[in-house]
Amino acid sequence: MSKDKSAEHFEVKPGSSVRLDRIDTGFHGAYDCEASAAAETARHLSRITELQRKLYADQSKALLIVLQGIDSAGKDGTCWHVIGAMDPQGVHVTGFKQPTALELQHHFLWRVEPHAPARGQVSIFNRSHYEDVLVAKVHALAPAEIIEQRYDLINTWERMLVEQNNTTILKFFLNISKDEQLARFRERLDNPAHQWKISEADYTERDRWDDYARAFEIALTRCSTRHAPWRIIPSDKKWYRNLAIAKIIADSLQDMHLRLPAPTVDIDDIRRRYHAEIVADSKGVAAKAQKKHKHSKNMSD
Amino acid sequence: MSKDKSAEHFEVKPGSSVRLDRIDTGFHGAYDCEASAAAETARHLSRITELQRKLYADQSKALLIVLQGIDSAGKDGTCWHVIGAMDPQGVHVTGFKQPTALELQHHFLWRVEPHAPARGQVSIFNRSHYEDVLVAKVHALAPAEIIEQRYDLINTWERMLVEQNNTTILKFFLNISKDEQLARFRERLDNPAHQWKISEADYTERDRWDDYARAFEIALTRCSTRHAPWRIIPSDKKWYRNLAIAKIIADSLQDMHLRLPAPTVDIDDIRRRYHAEIVADSKGVAAKAQKKHKHSKNMSD
Repeated sequence: MSKDKSAEHFEVKPGSSVRLDRIDTGFHGAYDCEASAAAETARHLSRITELQRKLYADQSKALLIVLQGIDSAGKDGTCWHVIGAMDPQGVHVTGFKQPTALELQHHFLWRVEPHAPARGQVSIFNRSHYEDVLVAKVHALAPAEIIEQRYDLINTWERMLVEQNNTTILKFFLNISKDEQLARFRERLDNPAHQWKISEADYTERDRWDDYARAFEIALTRCSTRHAPWRIIPSDKKWYRNLAIAKIIADSLQDMHLRLPAPTVDIDDIRRRYHAEIVADSKGVAAKAQKKHKHSKNMSD
Repeated sequence: MSKDKSAEHFEVKPGSSVRLDRIDTGFHGAYDCEASAAAETARHLSRITELQRKLYADQSKALLIVLQGIDSAGKDGTCWHVIGAMDPQGVHVTGFKQPTALELQHHFLWRVEPHAPARGQVSIFNRSHYEDVLVAKVHALAPAEIIEQRYDLINTWERMLVEQNNTTILKFFLNISKDEQLARFRERLDNPAHQWKISEADYTERDRWDDYARAFEIALTRCSTRHAPWRIIPSDKKWYRNLAIAKIIADSLQDMHLRLPAPTVDIDDIRRRYHAEIVADSKGVAAKAQKKHKHSKNMSD
């Protein structure tokens, strides 16, 4: 990754060529340990809470978050730790699993389209349309020339979301090392509450690690566009992954310049007609209420 | 409400006749104030977090939560404060607003059905199919005999979810007083961040308060069934509403007797073949890992 400003956001610069073996999966910035990052992470999660509420009110813009990464890279953990800061009312997480028989009778974007975020909403894709150039490529689930066409189709589709529906797209590749994956499999194995998740395929897919890495590199290279760049998140440290993603989401929401809609009624007129008793002291109360509600959970009621 | 055991869950007993003017909207149990209820509320929210994770893993049962109540009764606040304890990956909130032109060309349950929870999932209805016997009745949006048929159709549909898809249905009527509604409208009026939500209709609908109360009474009476009783939650105190609903959801999840699926692989065999280095010390690690993960946010990773 280059050392310019985009580096702090782990952005893949459009036109640059991704080489995963040159990227440090264990990077953790200026932070030594989970405890040292906790306050900063909490701050960004609060920003997300506040700004997502504004996105919901604004109704003019949408946010799509794509999570990709090899098994155990932390997609589920990111949903819980970071996306959990949002009001469930404005968020929809879609897990894209193996396509159904019906889905396979359609082109690859057919099942994805219904889950694109409406304006005012956040959609999270836990896996996504990128599986059709990842697992599909590694296992040759479609003819090579069909897969080859998909990169441009993805770019066109994503640009449509950006340009036609004011969507901001954040694509996170959760980058862990092969050793870290094995360590996480071991934790799962040692924790009875997680053993049901284990399949033999988790391990046999490790034999194709390099094939997956190559498929990711191509996707990250060809589908990092100006309107929807990929971000490669160092994810060996779960806590650093949470911090990095929380910061990027918060910053991106802030860059969307969200605004609360103007009142559609004459506030003073409503006050006069329906709250006669409060007209006298309303200005003092208003200032007090504004202060009290700011950044507070009570904002939702 | 009767004084038997079901009273603590605010259940409407099937066959009993609801009279809202006899029910205390300001009830707050043994708690004096928000602070006194905070620990108990937090405890139930933790139970919800843990049990919903189990529901997600179990995959054999579903949970549907229906929130109804007059404008400002606290439906949105409940989503944020209580449903927010769940992993966003296993939850889908649907807000049922005024039907679209297409939806109006169908029967009233057509738009609801796609949002019924899949097994393993929780669906929240913020407003619901009950609007078709509430606002539809108050404003005569359909012929009287069509509305009359809907109560039984709702009961049949809900029983189908219970019997055909192992769904537990929790229906909460958030019960506030007319004065409390005006006080909440006033807060909204005095808080610039909330003014965009105000409409003249909020106030004109207050003229129909008694009509709505009557429509709710009929729905609560006719659609409190053994398989899906209504619960009337005293909601003047937001903090008590959160506590009561959190407790009921947690207790209900617990009553579902959720189980983690058994491993589909031979754990020892996997250990031997892929984690050779750890076979020796695995038992000690397993016990430690189990203890460490219990009730912790790390469970998700």
